[in-house]
Amino acid sequence: MATLVQKYGGTSVGSVERIQAVAARVCGYIDQGHRVVVVVSAMSGETNRLVGLGRGVSAQPVPREMDVLQAAGEQVSIALTAMAIKAAGHESRSYLADQVAIRTDSSFGKARISHIDVERLNADLDQGVVPVVAGFQGVDVDGNVTTLGRGGSDTTAVAIAAALSADECQICTDVDGVYTADPRIVDDAQRLERITFEEMLELASLGSKVLHPRSVEFAGKYQVPLRVMSSFEEGPGTLITTESKRMEQPIVAGIAYSRDEAKLTMSGVPDVPGVASRILGPVGRAPIEVDMIVQNTGADGTTDFTFTVKRDDYDHALDLLGPVQRELGARELSGDNKIAKVSVVGVGMRSHAGVASQMFDALAAENINILMISTSEIKISVVVAERYLELAVRCMHEAFGLGAEVVSEE
Amino acid sequence: MATLVQKYGGTSVGSVERIQAVAARVCGYIDQGHRVVVVVSAMSGETNRLVGLGRGVSAQPVPREMDVLQAAGEQVSIALTAMAIKAAGHESRSYLADQVAIRTDSSFGKARISHIDVERLNADLDQGVVPVVAGFQGVDVDGNVTTLGRGGSDTTAVAIAAALSADECQICTDVDGVYTADPRIVDDAQRLERITFEEMLELASLGSKVLHPRSVEFAGKYQVPLRVMSSFEEGPGTLITTESKRMEQPIVAGIAYSRDEAKLTMSGVPDVPGVASRILGPVGRAPIEVDMIVQNTGADGTTDFTFTVKRDDYDHALDLLGPVQRELGARELSGDNKIAKVSVVGVGMRSHAGVASQMFDALAAENINILMISTSEIKISVVVAERYLELAVRCMHEAFGLGAEVVSEE
Repeated sequence: MATLVQKYGGTSVGSVERIQAVAARVCGYIDQGHRVVVVVSAMSGETNRLVGLGRGVSAQPVPREMDVLQAAGEQVSIALTAMAIKAAGHESRSYLADQVAIRTDSSFGKARISHIDVERLNADLDQGVVPVVAGFQGVDVDGNVTTLGRGGSDTTAVAIAAALSADECQICTDVDGVYTADPRIVDDAQRLERITFEEMLELASLGSKVLHPRSVEFAGKYQVPLRVMSSFEEGPGTLITTESKRMEQPIVAGIAYSRDEAKLTMSGVPDVPGVASRILGPVGRAPIEVDMIVQNTGADGTTDFTFTVKRDDYDHALDLLGPVQRELGARELSGDNKIAKVSVVGVGMRSHAGVASQMFDALAAENINILMISTSEIKISVVVAERYLELAVRCMHEAFGLGAEVVSEE
Repeated sequence: MATLVQKYGGTSVGSVERIQAVAARVCGYIDQGHRVVVVVSAMSGETNRLVGLGRGVSAQPVPREMDVLQAAGEQVSIALTAMAIKAAGHESRSYLADQVAIRTDSSFGKARISHIDVERLNADLDQGVVPVVAGFQGVDVDGNVTTLGRGGSDTTAVAIAAALSADECQICTDVDGVYTADPRIVDDAQRLERITFEEMLELASLGSKVLHPRSVEFAGKYQVPLRVMSSFEEGPGTLITTESKRMEQPIVAGIAYSRDEAKLTMSGVPDVPGVASRILGPVGRAPIEVDMIVQNTGADGTTDFTFTVKRDDYDHALDLLGPVQRELGARELSGDNKIAKVSVVGVGMRSHAGVASQMFDALAAENINILMISTSEIKISVVVAERYLELAVRCMHEAFGLGAEVVSEE
C-alpha cells in the first residue's frame, strides 16, 4: 500500500468521458489498496478561453484578476472529477487551493508555493476519501487567489507529494513516459525506465514538453520520486529519481531538441570590459529570455558576440540591438531565425570524456554544420540550421546507441 | 453621495462588450461621487453549461461538488468585471464569497446567508476602490463552497446592502422597472415609481420574473431600499420600499399572471377529517409544489377538492392521485392543464372593500369564467382558462385604472 499523488493534465480531463476514465483509473488504484490524492488541471482549452475573455475585457489585464479568472478553470475540473470518482464507487472531495492552504507568495501569475496544510488530506486518506485538489493555484497571505504559472499543476502535485511524504508523485499525461528521443522523429526511440532529476531537468529545459522544469527541480529538491505515465494506458512510465539509486549508468540518457530558436550576432565589437552587459542589458530588461551565449575573441582587438532567444522574440531583440550597435561602434549586427537546438543529456557524461567529440563526429558524418556550441556538466547542445534538425537528432540517437534495448536495473 | 450596491445579472455581463458597458456605467456612478459595491452573476448560459457538465459526469450529482462547480461561473464574472472597471478608469478588486466571509449554513444548493464581513468592502470604498463581489455563492463554517439557489445573486446584493447599511440596493437587469402589468400584454402598462415590499413579494411570487421573492423578503426584513432598473438605459426604475414612506395609495399596484399552471380536482370525496392531508400528502412528498387549494363542501356529505400545481408536475400529480382516489372512494378525479392564474395586487386593498367585486364584474363583462378564487390580505387571484389570460389581464388593468398616469409622490 503506497501513498500516491496523481496529477492529470488538461487533455486527461478534457471531456466528461475522459473525466470518467480518470475516475475509473483512480478507483482502480484505491481498489488495489493505495491511498491516492488527485491533482487536476483545467479542462483542455479552458484556460485559453478564460485568458481570451480577460484580454477582451482589458488591453492591460490586471494580474490579480487574471489569476482569479484562470483559477475558475481548475475549480470546474475538481468538482467534476470528485463527482465522477464518487459515481465510480469511492468517496471523494474536491479542494480549492485555499481549502488546503496552498500558501504562496503574492507574485500573481507566477507565484511560488511556501506551505501546504496536509491535515485535511491525511484525514480524508485515513477515511478512504479521495481528495481532488485544484492544481495551478494558490492563496497568498492576504487570501488573494494566485496562480503558479506554466507547469503549475505539476508543481502543485509535487508540492503535495513532498508535504505528504508520498511514495510517488505520478504525472499522468498523454504520453507513456520519457523517451530517448522524440518518437515522432526517431523510429526506434526507447522509453526510459528511469532517469535522474538532473537529466530530466535538462531534457525538460531543452524542449522536451513532458514535464515543466520547475516541477522537476522541486521534486529533486524534496527527493519526491516522480513518475511520468499515460493517463489512458497501463504501463510503468518513466521514474525520475535520484542518481544514487541507479545501478547501470548509460553515458547518454536521451536526445532533446528545441525548434523555435533564433540567434543574433553582433560582430566586430570593441573587446573591452562591460560589453556583454551593454549588449544583453536592454534585451534582458525587455524582458526577453536569453538562452545560449557565446563570445569569441578575434585577432583585431574586437570580439563577436552571439546569443539565442525564442523565435517569437527575434524581431523585438533585433530592434533593441540597433541602437546598441551604433553606440558601441560594432561592425555588424546579424541574425538567423531558422535555427534549432539539439542536445545530448546524461549524467554519465561527467565521467566520460569523448561524448562531445562523438557528437561532433556524428554531425560531421552527415555534413551538418555546427553554428554554436554550449555545454554543461551533463549536457552538450549544438545549434544547427533548422532544416537539419531531424537528421541531427537521428544521427546522434544512433551514435550513442540509444535505439538498443535500454538497460534496466529492475 | 450615496453608498450603493449594484447587482448585474447574467444577461448584463453576458459578453465582453456588455461587461465593458457595465464597467462604464459603474464608473459613471463613481464619478458622481457615489460609493459603489458591485455584485455580479455568472455570464448568461454559463451556469447551465456547468450544470450540464456535472450531470454528464454523474447521474447523481453530489450537492457539495455541484456548488463548487457552479461557483466557478461567478468567479469568472468578478475577475472580468473588476478588470473592465480598472480599464474604464477606476481601481477595482474582485472578491469571492470566502474573501468577504459570506458565511452560510451548509445546505448545498440552497444555502442561507448568516453573516457578511464588510471590513474589506468598507476599506476599499474608503480608498476609492470598487469591490466586485461574486453573487450566488457563500462559504460554510468548514470552508466549503455553497450556493444560494435561485435568485441567489439578488440575495447576495441585498445581504451586502444590509450589512453595509447602504442607501440603496440596485438590481440592474434587462427591464427598466416594475410595471402595472406585463407590457407585452397590456399596451399602456405603466412603470411604477414605487411599490411596497409586500406588493413586490406578491408580484414576484405570482410570476413577475423581475425579482426573486427571496431577495424581496430579505430586503423587507432588513429595510433595505431596493431599486429595479435597467442595466442598459438611463432611468429611475422602480423603488421597492416600506409602506410607511408612501403618501398616495393606489388601491391596486399591478396585475400579475402565471401561465404554466394546472389544476387537479378530486370530486365526491367523503367529507371526513384528514381527507385534505390524505390527498395532498403524496403530492407534497413527491415533492411537488402546490399553490392554490380550494375545498367546497357539497350537500350530500361529500366534498370537492381542487388544487393547482406547475404544469410540468401535472402528469406526475395525476399519477399519484389515482391510488388515493381508490383508497378514499372518491367519485371522480379530473384535471385541466390549460389554465392560467391572474392576480391583482395592492396594499390599498386592505382598507378598500369592493376590489374583489370590481374584479369579478370586469371578468363577467368579458364573459370570462372564473374557475378558482384565492385571496390574501393584499392580493386576489383567479384561475381562468388559459385562452382568456391576456384578455383577463387587460380588462383588469383597465378596470382598476392602471393605464392612467401613475400617482407619484416625488
